[in-house]
Amino acid sequence: MYLPLGFPYYEDGPAYNEILKNYHALKAHGINATLGYIPSSLVQSISWPEEYWIIDSPREIVFTTPPGTAISTRTKIIEDAIYSIAEAGNRDILKGWRNERFPVYGPGGEIVLEIERSASATFGIVTSGVQLLCYVEDEQGHIRLWIARRSEKKQTYPGMLDCTAAGALGVGESPRSAMILEATEEASLDSGIIDTDMRSVGSISYFHMKSPFPIIGNDSASAPLLLPEAQYLYELKLDQDIVPRPNDSEVEDFRLWNVDQVLEALSRGLFKPNSAVVVIEFFIRHGIIKPETEPNYREIIMRLHRRLPFPTAVRLG
Amino acid sequence: MYLPLGFPYYEDGPAYNEILKNYHALKAHGINATLGYIPSSLVQSISWPEEYWIIDSPREIVFTTPPGTAISTRTKIIEDAIYSIAEAGNRDILKGWRNERFPVYGPGGEIVLEIERSASATFGIVTSGVQLLCYVEDEQGHIRLWIARRSEKKQTYPGMLDCTAAGALGVGESPRSAMILEATEEASLDSGIIDTDMRSVGSISYFHMKSPFPIIGNDSASAPLLLPEAQYLYELKLDQDIVPRPNDSEVEDFRLWNVDQVLEALSRGLFKPNSAVVVIEFFIRHGIIKPETEPNYREIIMRLHRRLPFPTAVRLG
Repeated sequence: MYLPLGFPYYEDGPAYNEILKNYHALKAHGINATLGYIPSSLVQSISWPEEYWIIDSPREIVFTTPPGTAISTRTKIIEDAIYSIAEAGNRDILKGWRNERFPVYGPGGEIVLEIERSASATFGIVTSGVQLLCYVEDEQGHIRLWIARRSEKKQTYPGMLDCTAAGALGVGESPRSAMILEATEEASLDSGIIDTDMRSVGSISYFHMKSPFPIIGNDSASAPLLLPEAQYLYELKLDQDIVPRPNDSEVEDFRLWNVDQVLEALSRGLFKPNSAVVVIEFFIRHGIIKPETEPNYREIIMRLHRRLPFPTAVRLG
Repeated sequence: MYLPLGFPYYEDGPAYNEILKNYHALKAHGINATLGYIPSSLVQSISWPEEYWIIDSPREIVFTTPPGTAISTRTKIIEDAIYSIAEAGNRDILKGWRNERFPVYGPGGEIVLEIERSASATFGIVTSGVQLLCYVEDEQGHIRLWIARRSEKKQTYPGMLDCTAAGALGVGESPRSAMILEATEEASLDSGIIDTDMRSVGSISYFHMKSPFPIIGNDSASAPLLLPEAQYLYELKLDQDIVPRPNDSEVEDFRLWNVDQVLEALSRGLFKPNSAVVVIEFFIRHGIIKPETEPNYREIIMRLHRRLPFPTAVRLG
């Protein structure tokens, strides 16, 4: 299986520095952590009010508000910066605006600020989500997966293949509650069945890199957006007579795919990228991808559980 | 759940350097990789023949044999060094000698040398193993695990709790074949049942730190040995009427433990350390350890899949 090289590890030295020189680290006075990474071209595309921000060398953009500042104050300051970046030519941020906020955590697990979901990628903020794969298993143990096809009308990855249900984790949501809600809303599954049979099976974490919005008046190649993500994973073995059905406008249809069909679709790049990795993890956990047949077995597993260099909700001492 | 801090990550900067200053990196001329880490006190306890070794600053001990050197030649050179270290007061290396060799890989996946199993920890060489957990599941979905108690006569971790079967992966062995062999030899399981029902479920990787052998004539506190390990994981759901039985002298007995009993034993430190992490991973995969009840959920998962800074059998790009 081919995996692109992606975002280098810190210990890779030269490769890491080669990438990071194109970004500003987002920090806040008195908070000992990097909160995100913004492409330097975006930092330079607007002016940052001096009462709230300082642009530090080397390549840091820092909230000057003191540590005790209210969450809502920082949230407002960063929202103003988002509007400025949008007005500087990145209209897509506003187009995708969902009025759904992600928490940004400090090193003690405290919320430092909240950021609009559609802008989290611009600031390279780590985001969390939930992913469910439903499957059926026949008497011979052969697995088939309920694969969703995204609506052609979706703003992101229209028409691409997806897990059975998925969603983002907002401020204060429990992964399990969020997953149950998504599975009932997106796949019309009975909440009783989900509650009884849905199993928590782990989490994955990785750096996704994505092409940035074009910047008007700036034709030079811009650095990709950095999207560090964590996904809480769930699986649900369904009886053969239970059929997920689209409910809201998110999903075009659900189809029951056998393993070879899913592997073929993966290799053709038909899955939304952060759903593809969930399917790969499922295949590893179910013994379909094996060390004897996948030369990059361990490397894939290590990269799917990357330690992200940002605080998350809770950390060990 | 409490997890000790353990070996710091490279990006931790000061903490990483504070630990690493007590070790020499093992390298070889013309091979662009660190092969292991040796406590500097052990390096200084013997003299290293100048025709084969050079002690470089900062803190590197380097094979001077050229890149094309035969595996058997390097294997012999390092064996001589092992004997010297043993004679300098670390007799335990010889006491544990098993005539079982581990491969040491270069960055292209090629074997650079082989090292006696009982000496791999001394040189901080990454080792690979296989681990099997057998379990039964009742009608309500409640899981019980077949837990082994190690023989009191074992040289390492006598009397401690263990997975159902486990073993080290020698040169050229396939994880699945090695696991089947261990499960038949240690737990008397029928190879037909294993072959049909045993499932590959992933791998874990981590840095284990272990107190070193005492050095005669050197009373200063010595740095712990560094044991980077990778484990290929397997599980096997057994019918209630199948009972694993000790076969060789490795295992005292097998008992069927419920989840609460296993969690209690984990918290009391009754498991061999690198078996405890396998049980924790099983509990995460089976939804017994959950994000809602384990505050360190993601941190534990990331640390159980650490990217090790050494070449392994095959690597990406």
